[in-house]
Amino acid sequence: MNLYETLAADIAGQVARGVLLEGERLPSVRQASQHRSLSISTVLRAYSLLESRGVIESRPQSGYFVRIRPRSGAALARPAAGPALQAPALVLSSEVDVSRLVLSTLRTIRTLNAVPLGSPYPDPAPFPWPRISQYANAIARRNQQWNMMDDLPPGNPQLIRQIARRHMENGLAVDPSEIIITVGATEAINLCLQAVARPGDTIAVESPTFYAFLHAIERMGMRAIEVPTDPREGISIEGLRGILAQQRIAACMVMPNFQNPLGFQMPDERKRELVELLSQHDIPVIENDVYNELYYGDSHPTCLKAYDTKGLVLHCSSFSKSLTANYRIGWALPGRYTAQVEKLKFLNTLTTPTLPQLAIADYLQNDGYDRHLRKVRKGYEERARMMAAAVLRFFPEGTRVSEPQGGYVLWVGLPGGVDAMQLYALALERKITVGPGHMFSARGSYTDYIRLNYSYPWSKETEEALRTLGRLVEDLLGASRP
Amino acid sequence: MNLYETLAADIAGQVARGVLLEGERLPSVRQASQHRSLSISTVLRAYSLLESRGVIESRPQSGYFVRIRPRSGAALARPAAGPALQAPALVLSSEVDVSRLVLSTLRTIRTLNAVPLGSPYPDPAPFPWPRISQYANAIARRNQQWNMMDDLPPGNPQLIRQIARRHMENGLAVDPSEIIITVGATEAINLCLQAVARPGDTIAVESPTFYAFLHAIERMGMRAIEVPTDPREGISIEGLRGILAQQRIAACMVMPNFQNPLGFQMPDERKRELVELLSQHDIPVIENDVYNELYYGDSHPTCLKAYDTKGLVLHCSSFSKSLTANYRIGWALPGRYTAQVEKLKFLNTLTTPTLPQLAIADYLQNDGYDRHLRKVRKGYEERARMMAAAVLRFFPEGTRVSEPQGGYVLWVGLPGGVDAMQLYALALERKITVGPGHMFSARGSYTDYIRLNYSYPWSKETEEALRTLGRLVEDLLGASRP
Repeated sequence: MNLYETLAADIAGQVARGVLLEGERLPSVRQASQHRSLSISTVLRAYSLLESRGVIESRPQSGYFVRIRPRSGAALARPAAGPALQAPALVLSSEVDVSRLVLSTLRTIRTLNAVPLGSPYPDPAPFPWPRISQYANAIARRNQQWNMMDDLPPGNPQLIRQIARRHMENGLAVDPSEIIITVGATEAINLCLQAVARPGDTIAVESPTFYAFLHAIERMGMRAIEVPTDPREGISIEGLRGILAQQRIAACMVMPNFQNPLGFQMPDERKRELVELLSQHDIPVIENDVYNELYYGDSHPTCLKAYDTKGLVLHCSSFSKSLTANYRIGWALPGRYTAQVEKLKFLNTLTTPTLPQLAIADYLQNDGYDRHLRKVRKGYEERARMMAAAVLRFFPEGTRVSEPQGGYVLWVGLPGGVDAMQLYALALERKITVGPGHMFSARGSYTDYIRLNYSYPWSKETEEALRTLGRLVEDLLGASRP
Repeated sequence: MNLYETLAADIAGQVARGVLLEGERLPSVRQASQHRSLSISTVLRAYSLLESRGVIESRPQSGYFVRIRPRSGAALARPAAGPALQAPALVLSSEVDVSRLVLSTLRTIRTLNAVPLGSPYPDPAPFPWPRISQYANAIARRNQQWNMMDDLPPGNPQLIRQIARRHMENGLAVDPSEIIITVGATEAINLCLQAVARPGDTIAVESPTFYAFLHAIERMGMRAIEVPTDPREGISIEGLRGILAQQRIAACMVMPNFQNPLGFQMPDERKRELVELLSQHDIPVIENDVYNELYYGDSHPTCLKAYDTKGLVLHCSSFSKSLTANYRIGWALPGRYTAQVEKLKFLNTLTTPTLPQLAIADYLQNDGYDRHLRKVRKGYEERARMMAAAVLRFFPEGTRVSEPQGGYVLWVGLPGGVDAMQLYALALERKITVGPGHMFSARGSYTDYIRLNYSYPWSKETEEALRTLGRLVEDLLGASRP
């Protein structure tokens, strides 16, 4: 190909891929010549070629534009911007790639408008969007210059102060200089784990466990050991004691409040026992407390951090479940590992964007966070009961459900060893998503469990989806019988 | 301590640490009782105790407030919000902790208002703040709900399209489905390295090399091998060939355009040779191209990606040097490793905040990015010459300077083996920062080099600072002579 043909092929390719939309202007001949180090005449020949092929058109005094093509349909709709979404990849091998599974579930919800029972995220509708946007807007309007020096780790001082105050209001006195702002709790968990353990180390987790813990452990070349976990009281202290007597554990990772997927709240006494046991062995514990604000009881649950006397609890949390997910603001309180986590934050992403930090700080300082949360909690608590009742009604005998004390997910045990990945695949065909139990264990346990999200408003569609799921479980149960 | 005394001590502590500011309202007695699961009378006793000690005061019909204390000074200034900044830690051991050094330099610039010659970041003043803020503002005003499903990896589709268009304008045809949005180039570099290499692997880097590469390599338990690098032409292809003949290299990490700290632009022919050599050995190369838009020549430099035929180039970039740093928007074009990097992005930080992505997308689509860049480039090119001339004028004989072809840093070789960490320490006492050469090598090379930032407007203060640095170098030189 000549230079001009190459250029023409490039541009045609960009049009085909939707990088250049119909009706949009191309770079001027001079610009293109400069940017690509081509002669003016080469660019002109390329543009002429494209024009003769009907890809672009020249408009006098204006330049070259991507040609708008007549369509067969009535409306002349613009193609959707951006790359086409991949079709959800279905993973059915014994080695379930959990992150792919989660991503493909979410994409399915979006592209097929599927019923979001399989989503790990809360319905964003109840988030106080008008208020948060108003603060973001006011910050943008102030139009100040921000310097990279301003919000270096540990993070924006205003937000840090507001987080310290919130902890105090919830009964936990924290030293603000211990708070490190992160990109969601996900980054906080990753950094905390890297601060306390090394490749090859063994990390004790609940069973079932929140899959992001398993991801973090696997990504860093560590190993998970799964400790029996009571669906009402949390990780077995006795089980953990037994493991500690036999092998070295580098750290423990738990969700003491409204664990995903079980939904329990560890009783205070057990929280204290857990911290004491680990402290005796000088083992750090990473606690993921992102559901803390979503309790159904009378008051905020305590966290492990409240029982920590040796700086061994690394507390992680975020606003993604309680206030706004897309702002991606989380934090860590890493106890005696604060300096390491701060350094790792700097190495991992340098800083967290300023605008989202300030918007949340202003909201917390000036607005009705508690009022918002009261409303959300009430809705979740109601729907927890409705979802459990509907599952028990529509699913075959032998189905078991959890009794969440907070949060927005229900854990469902399927009868007769029905395989949750099979259910996942069949449900997907009917535009319904579920969270297969396979995701919650590195040992292949919980293959006959699913997790259901009840943060969305209850509707006829929800009920119909649960009825369909019940029928699918029944079919799978029938097929597995001799 | 009794319960009420504990509560009182907690609150007093929060006041002392600045979590509760003077004049601010405490939680009501009922709130505090609920949140902390204490009886009303316990809270009342704690508040009375604090009142008797003068920490808080009650105001009729309003509640309890932190008492405002009279100050000795004239003005009744509020204390600065947030945690106190740590005093800059001075590292002078042979094992320089580079990330601490960078952090402490930046904090010094901020707290002491020191001369920012040691900063790695560009002066934010020329960033088009009013325009970017205007887009952020318009997005916030639209007040739409965002769903976590919207901007999952690879990222926001609008921004991805704009980045693909920008690459096309700069002469590189990219497939938009290869673009993955990250939290700055820092995250992109970390994810790309993790996608192509494992702990224990050896990574070839330039010498001197950009320290963030060394950080990433060290953090993942890999080893760096430093390849001789020409201050004008870049990494030695021959040197690299020699290394490849002797040992296994898992990947190569380079900055072909306006390398930090040398400032060279690799000639096109050498870029092509480098990619061909590595392709022959099937070795991936991570290219950090964050300074691409800051060229002094007539047109955009090409990048390694342009010569890639096998999908082995992982291109990383960001808007942090050219448009806005605090929005923290970067991206990767990971070639054949796209699926892995996308998955790692999901595991590392889930998604990148939506608002900054959209604001930048709108700016790129509607505004004068090229006009802004032309202005910035002109300023940098001028100051490169001024800074070099001033250094050669004020520093002792034997001092050498680089000839940057783009970007905003100058590399200065000190005469007679003067130690840059000693200069760093002495300069700090005079409120001047410099970037010691120690940061740019894992082998302890370049201890007699410094990096200077010339992105800030030239001023009497700059000139005075350079004069002072010159005198300090002279003193150190004298002291080292017998």
